[in-house]
Amino acid sequence: MTSAPAISRFPVPKLDDLPADIRARIEAVQEKAGFVPNVFLVLAYRPDEFRAFMAYHDALMEKEGGLSLAEREMIVVATSNANHCHYCVVAHGAILRVRAKDPLIADQVAVNHRKADIAPRQRAMLDFAMKVALASHEVEDDDLAALEAQGFSRDDVWDIAAIAAFFAMSNRMANVTSMRPNEEFYGMAR
Amino acid sequence: MTSAPAISRFPVPKLDDLPADIRARIEAVQEKAGFVPNVFLVLAYRPDEFRAFMAYHDALMEKEGGLSLAEREMIVVATSNANHCHYCVVAHGAILRVRAKDPLIADQVAVNHRKADIAPRQRAMLDFAMKVALASHEVEDDDLAALEAQGFSRDDVWDIAAIAAFFAMSNRMANVTSMRPNEEFYGMAR
Amino acid sequence: MTSAPAISRFPVPKLDDLPADIRARIEAVQEKAGFVPNVFLVLAYRPDEFRAFMAYHDALMEKEGGLSLAEREMIVVATSNANHCHYCVVAHGAILRVRAKDPLIADQVAVNHRKADIAPRQRAMLDFAMKVALASHEVEDDDLAALEAQGFSRDDVWDIAAIAAFFAMSNRMANVTSMRPNEEFYGMAR
Amino acid sequence: MTSAPAISRFPVPKLDDLPADIRARIEAVQEKAGFVPNVFLVLAYRPDEFRAFMAYHDALMEKEGGLSLAEREMIVVATSNANHCHYCVVAHGAILRVRAKDPLIADQVAVNHRKADIAPRQRAMLDFAMKVALASHEVEDDDLAALEAQGFSRDDVWDIAAIAAFFAMSNRMANVTSMRPNEEFYGMAR
Amino acid sequence: MTSAPAISRFPVPKLDDLPADIRARIEAVQEKAGFVPNVFLVLAYRPDEFRAFMAYHDALMEKEGGLSLAEREMIVVATSNANHCHYCVVAHGAILRVRAKDPLIADQVAVNHRKADIAPRQRAMLDFAMKVALASHEVEDDDLAALEAQGFSRDDVWDIAAIAAFFAMSNRMANVTSMRPNEEFYGMAR
Amino acid sequence: MTSAPAISRFPVPKLDDLPADIRARIEAVQEKAGFVPNVFLVLAYRPDEFRAFMAYHDALMEKEGGLSLAEREMIVVATSNANHCHYCVVAHGAILRVRAKDPLIADQVAVNHRKADIAPRQRAMLDFAMKVALASHEVEDDDLAALEAQGFSRDDVWDIAAIAAFFAMSNRMANVTSMRPNEEFYGMAR
Repeated sequence: MTSAPAISRFPVPKLDDLPADIRARIEAVQEKAGFVPNVFLVLAYRPDEFRAFMAYHDALMEKEGGLSLAEREMIVVATSNANHCHYCVVAHGAILRVRAKDPLIADQVAVNHRKADIAPRQRAMLDFAMKVALASHEVEDDDLAALEAQGFSRDDVWDIAAIAAFFAMSNRMANVTSMRPNEEFYGMAR
Repeated sequence: MTSAPAISRFPVPKLDDLPADIRARIEAVQEKAGFVPNVFLVLAYRPDEFRAFMAYHDALMEKEGGLSLAEREMIVVATSNANHCHYCVVAHGAILRVRAKDPLIADQVAVNHRKADIAPRQRAMLDFAMKVALASHEVEDDDLAALEAQGFSRDDVWDIAAIAAFFAMSNRMANVTSMRPNEEFYGMAR
Repeated sequence: MTSAPAISRFPVPKLDDLPADIRARIEAVQEKAGFVPNVFLVLAYRPDEFRAFMAYHDALMEKEGGLSLAEREMIVVATSNANHCHYCVVAHGAILRVRAKDPLIADQVAVNHRKADIAPRQRAMLDFAMKVALASHEVEDDDLAALEAQGFSRDDVWDIAAIAAFFAMSNRMANVTSMRPNEEFYGMAR
Repeated sequence: MTSAPAISRFPVPKLDDLPADIRARIEAVQEKAGFVPNVFLVLAYRPDEFRAFMAYHDALMEKEGGLSLAEREMIVVATSNANHCHYCVVAHGAILRVRAKDPLIADQVAVNHRKADIAPRQRAMLDFAMKVALASHEVEDDDLAALEAQGFSRDDVWDIAAIAAFFAMSNRMANVTSMRPNEEFYGMAR
Repeated sequence: MTSAPAISRFPVPKLDDLPADIRARIEAVQEKAGFVPNVFLVLAYRPDEFRAFMAYHDALMEKEGGLSLAEREMIVVATSNANHCHYCVVAHGAILRVRAKDPLIADQVAVNHRKADIAPRQRAMLDFAMKVALASHEVEDDDLAALEAQGFSRDDVWDIAAIAAFFAMSNRMANVTSMRPNEEFYGMAR
Repeated sequence: MTSAPAISRFPVPKLDDLPADIRARIEAVQEKAGFVPNVFLVLAYRPDEFRAFMAYHDALMEKEGGLSLAEREMIVVATSNANHCHYCVVAHGAILRVRAKDPLIADQVAVNHRKADIAPRQRAMLDFAMKVALASHEVEDDDLAALEAQGFSRDDVWDIAAIAAFFAMSNRMANVTSMRPNEEFYGMAR
């Protein structure tokens, strides 16, 4: 509504006021993406938490592993819509489109992963991720067995669970801070 | 996954096999939009229901009234995501972007209308529409009074309710038929 | 509480003030039933929507098909109680008793269809209808297969879904208008 | 479906085989009502539990107090439909019609107490009873104050809660035993 | 917060003011336990209900039967946490620890019975008890068959259901009265 | 059931095989607590995630701030029971008892924080934390204002939200790994 809407319910630090390591991280992202995703500025209000958040994120989302980068983003998008997280659906929807090289996949996965154009193993992956997001206490050995029947390793199961769990946290922080997605994300890779 | 994925779990009629009035309606849409939205083909499997559906739709979505055309689409998009209706979020998200001349509004309203860049009256409208979609038996006189305090007339209240109710139906048909949105919708007006 | 309680939260047109086609339709019902069901008067406030509603209703509830007329009313009664729709449970409960020639069936189906005196195919039909009413996004191919295993055709599946969907709409309109059932319905065919 | 459907999933004792006190109780009911309500036979399978159940029931439903006998039955009917208890809605619906001398009240209260023709104090009573039935852990001092503002004494509050709680138990036993209501109840006092 | 916090939202009778039979019952408990559990004082406000409650309790919890005394308490603890009943989780948690001679079992069963150190038959027992507590209308013949496949008799099924149902009532009364557990329970048998 | 039950569904590293920094961290905990809490061994299966998890934990739970250390643990215990996380309720219940020097508080907060012996500000804190845990998308400016009316700063609000969010993640990992609490926790500080 206004020309510069707030991106957080909490104070947002200026880039110049941030510790050097955080500023460097943000500038690297900016150089790569062409803009600073608001999550970096909103969370940088708490430098120690920022560092831990980013380290955790990278350990899950950037490492080698049995899940493709696009599959990881599918988990983020599906569970974030279940948590009604505006920031994460929009920003990670963009990243998913980029990584999957598919302009349609993000909207499909967000609204109802059962209707998405994905492989059966990806369907099983998202069924499990949604259970972790919404009813993790009901996870049983059978759920792990079902994933393994689709070819996932036990390590892949950890990855799926950990990504869904990490974004359970991230979605809640974005919802409470009322984190605003950058406008750049909406139309990216469509 | 395939080059021509199914657009319905039910038989889809060919345009040439349809009754003349239905074909005319569809050709008019095609001329205006540049393609035939799949909802027309999927529902045309049942001509009588098709005619009633479209007449109902037009009576709510095309008529004069206190709600702008964009506001009506906001109701559709918000309640359709609550019902996890892939077709309606994607197709009406596109129409909302067109009508609101705003590339961001549809994704905002879909994921969490509380975070959308909308006026307070629109927030009240969507709060009510969501109650109609999800717990209509709890609607009380106070809910109508709250809308009227925002400047809505009693007739506007009917319109909000009727649109949410109509798409409660439409979402369910789209979910059961597994209606597939046309690819054209995803990127429209972004 | 009063001698003539309101039948709607919205203005109710007088029969004489209605367009001729609507008046004719209502008079025909009145002649057959001996009274005017309130749904006709409440919805006639919006003539165009009235016409579409009735056309849709008739296309689903009056046409030929694999579902008996009583089975269609079972769907209405079961899903309407799930939606806590006072008008529809009372009015369609009466119609179900008439059509099934069974004074007990409506109350059974309304409270818990699992305990009703119905055939296994009807149980499967109502399980599916309740899923359409309450969680249509979870409908999968397996649900259709389960119905077909009970002898339903693919067309019957459409009918079940469409009736549940139509009353998802109708229930919401009745709840928002606070539509009041005629007293005649309560004791009919008991 | 059969000429003599089962009234319980558990063995049902013959009247002659029951302890004298239980038989006497049942015969007294039979004399008054003209038939033996199935709840007596189903629960008599466990004589000690039967005696406690009936003593509890009478202590709540038959005693003097600030709630009329009809109001107590309203609580039973509203909460029993929320628990989808076929037996209790049908049997206590009949008793409510008798006690309220009102053929319409039971169906109204069962489907949606918000739409019933009841006094404001009765509306408050049922709002509280439904909270006890569905989310008793959220009951707070404010809920009691709201009842007292409607003229209920602290003792009346206990009564409302205790009736809702007793039928929370009773509904569950009826659901698990698949207790079948006598046909006589359906049409009684309509 | 205060030195003698209230144990009920309702008046609490003095032991000396109670009818002799109730006083005798309470004194017997006091002698055995070393203190008077607050449930006795809170419920004694209503002597007739007290007598019925205790008779019912004893008929289920003290009688001979196929469920061990510890297993019965498992049902109480699991369903009471599902109902967020502070008194029952704390008091019956203590009794479960005593009866099972296991200091860990109560906390395990309370938080998530799927993770408790219990036998497969006990897992099946608690799955069923939770269904009775939370969705008894969905209990079907298959649920009983699953218990019988674990070696439970039809009578054991009644016991499981009846205990879950009785505490559905008891939890609601404890929640509404805001019944406070005695401090002695918290650390008992740990 | 067995003499050494599994503490995770995933491989558990030996202390000697861990990177030096992780081993040092674990040994420090062991020295202080007298045993190694299983969460350290279970999560150390993934060293990078372990480091980020612990850094995040410490940034929230160990830092200076407006919330007492006991208050932070209240948030953990209340939200962990809502998520049915066996490990976190047991382990953080123990820590809460230690930090609050109160043997009763953990069980109270776990089962129903509305009934706990806590100050009004702590009640407001837990109401908000539960909303973050269960429906963060519904958090509005009014929720923050309500906390500030209780004397919380905007920074305290962040802390409450971040702790609830962090344990939303932690609970999910504990549930999926089936993380087993050490027996030492159950009876600690009772």
